[in-house]
Amino acid sequence: MSFTVSERSTLFFHKPPSVATFASVVGKKEGEGPYGKSFDRVESDAYFGQKTWESAESTMFKEAVTTAIEKGSFRTSDISFLASGDLLNQCTATGYAARRLNIPFLGLYGACSTMAESLFIAALLVSGGAKRALAATSSHFCSSERQFRFPLEYGSQRPPTSQWTVTGAGAVILESEGKGPYITCATAGKVIDAGVCDANNMGCAMAPAFCDTVVRHLSASKSKPTDYDLIISGDLGYTGKRVASDLLKQEYHINIDAVYSDCGCMIFDPKKQDVHSGGSGCGCSASMLAGYILPQMKKGHLNRVLFVATGALMSPTMSCQGESIPSIAHAIEFNNCV
Amino acid sequence: MSFTVSERSTLFFHKPPSVATFASVVGKKEGEGPYGKSFDRVESDAYFGQKTWESAESTMFKEAVTTAIEKGSFRTSDISFLASGDLLNQCTATGYAARRLNIPFLGLYGACSTMAESLFIAALLVSGGAKRALAATSSHFCSSERQFRFPLEYGSQRPPTSQWTVTGAGAVILESEGKGPYITCATAGKVIDAGVCDANNMGCAMAPAFCDTVVRHLSASKSKPTDYDLIISGDLGYTGKRVASDLLKQEYHINIDAVYSDCGCMIFDPKKQDVHSGGSGCGCSASMLAGYILPQMKKGHLNRVLFVATGALMSPTMSCQGESIPSIAHAIEFNNCV
Repeated sequence: MSFTVSERSTLFFHKPPSVATFASVVGKKEGEGPYGKSFDRVESDAYFGQKTWESAESTMFKEAVTTAIEKGSFRTSDISFLASGDLLNQCTATGYAARRLNIPFLGLYGACSTMAESLFIAALLVSGGAKRALAATSSHFCSSERQFRFPLEYGSQRPPTSQWTVTGAGAVILESEGKGPYITCATAGKVIDAGVCDANNMGCAMAPAFCDTVVRHLSASKSKPTDYDLIISGDLGYTGKRVASDLLKQEYHINIDAVYSDCGCMIFDPKKQDVHSGGSGCGCSASMLAGYILPQMKKGHLNRVLFVATGALMSPTMSCQGESIPSIAHAIEFNNCV
Repeated sequence: MSFTVSERSTLFFHKPPSVATFASVVGKKEGEGPYGKSFDRVESDAYFGQKTWESAESTMFKEAVTTAIEKGSFRTSDISFLASGDLLNQCTATGYAARRLNIPFLGLYGACSTMAESLFIAALLVSGGAKRALAATSSHFCSSERQFRFPLEYGSQRPPTSQWTVTGAGAVILESEGKGPYITCATAGKVIDAGVCDANNMGCAMAPAFCDTVVRHLSASKSKPTDYDLIISGDLGYTGKRVASDLLKQEYHINIDAVYSDCGCMIFDPKKQDVHSGGSGCGCSASMLAGYILPQMKKGHLNRVLFVATGALMSPTMSCQGESIPSIAHAIEFNNCV
């Protein structure tokens, strides 16, 4: 036994995995945002030296992974498992990067919830007996736009509720022995479908899944929102963040506003960088986790953080068939104390 | 600690999870094959009562899951976690089914290796402290053909090395207490790319990943092939099975032929059902596991089985860009004795 399960989905780790190192790699636009100087690398070439957007994303992902490995002075052979996924069809950004890494690989699909899901799996592995596991994910504006929306060359109009897919990757190495921050507990999300069909309003589609997971996590951990220094959603954006805040108050009588932020609202400057409802994509919460949250925890500016990455599980095919958007959110609790 | 890790990727579970129940649902063609009577349900309507192939697959997946739950007289609330994925873009067959299940969900992408990957994650969860976890996956000939190849209406010619995507789903419930068969150990695959670019010869592309995983598993478990009653690959098909057998002999000096079978070679009758190089798809190994292997183990006809599901991680986009096909294989060892 390496953990206790509460309320069917929250794992309390008997020996909490420790964050060893982390790394973030982002694109030019993200580098020009408010947290631009926090990331390990800002790449001005959207192609990352490759010929296609897909290879660009895969290269960026690999760079985040190898940077996290190098920052810990590890070799790839020191990493027992890599748990990761991305937004591309058949998760090719991560799958193609993994062929050059020689690390046992567990491929995941959780859409933009992937950073939390990969940490969930990595924490399971490390708490169970693995020495180290790497959790990582990526997204790229250009590969996402052409796959989920329209070719970039169309220059299509975007509605106000739409979000801007972050070009970014994040990687976190967990280990069994270390000084923290620790992952003390984690809640797996349920797939929630609130009936939203507008693929240009994913914040709204994902907000109910975020609320469901937060409420279950707080209940299982017997905590109130102000016990945390920060509760942060992945990429609900301005629209989704407002919906989530309202929904928690109205449906669950929980007010998290005093400690609540959203990676999608933070990564771009709403005044100088017009991205409508904020940032999105697996790389949004991944790069903000590795570029901002974990460094703040290491410095002791944040001590207890609930990181809740949110994902919309639709595909263009299902949307074209008139289906609504199922969503999911996984919660990872980081704590400087065990 | 719930397991010991050997050679960086093989988990030996301290308290091996037990197989509680399992279920398989397949299409008409699979029902007409040599194992047609072994499956829990054969559905003659390729649409499974739905309007689209994607919804058909999702419905079939859900039916396999609910049948496994019913066969154990469980309620969905008895299942702590669902670990699953499928071949569709953004894994919508499983994601859309999960929204009606109310079970904490971990989405996976391992292409046709998904049945083994989902068992790997479910075994991690159950060995670590969860009471029960459900591993499942699906594939559908029609949803796969139009996504990966051509619209069915084209009636395109298929080369001799091509395989036929199985319309089928399999679900397995693991629990912490039970009479077995048990999952005693499991090996996570590495992503291997042998440089094969022909998306109509996936057996050949996947064979090196199968060999790598089998060799590592045998080494970690200090076993020889004949210690097993059966070593079975997921869907290498006739071409890939021959390549795998030869490669093991030539590169690793290991001969597994006496105990080696492949789900893709078994599920269809090569004389009466012309599927060229055999069956493929996540549902191939999943339905053969739940429809044939596990029932044979329950009866005591098989006692120690190495189930190695294989996956090709390419996408049509990457193939069009001239990329080769990375592959992966995860191994799950089932044993009637602990």
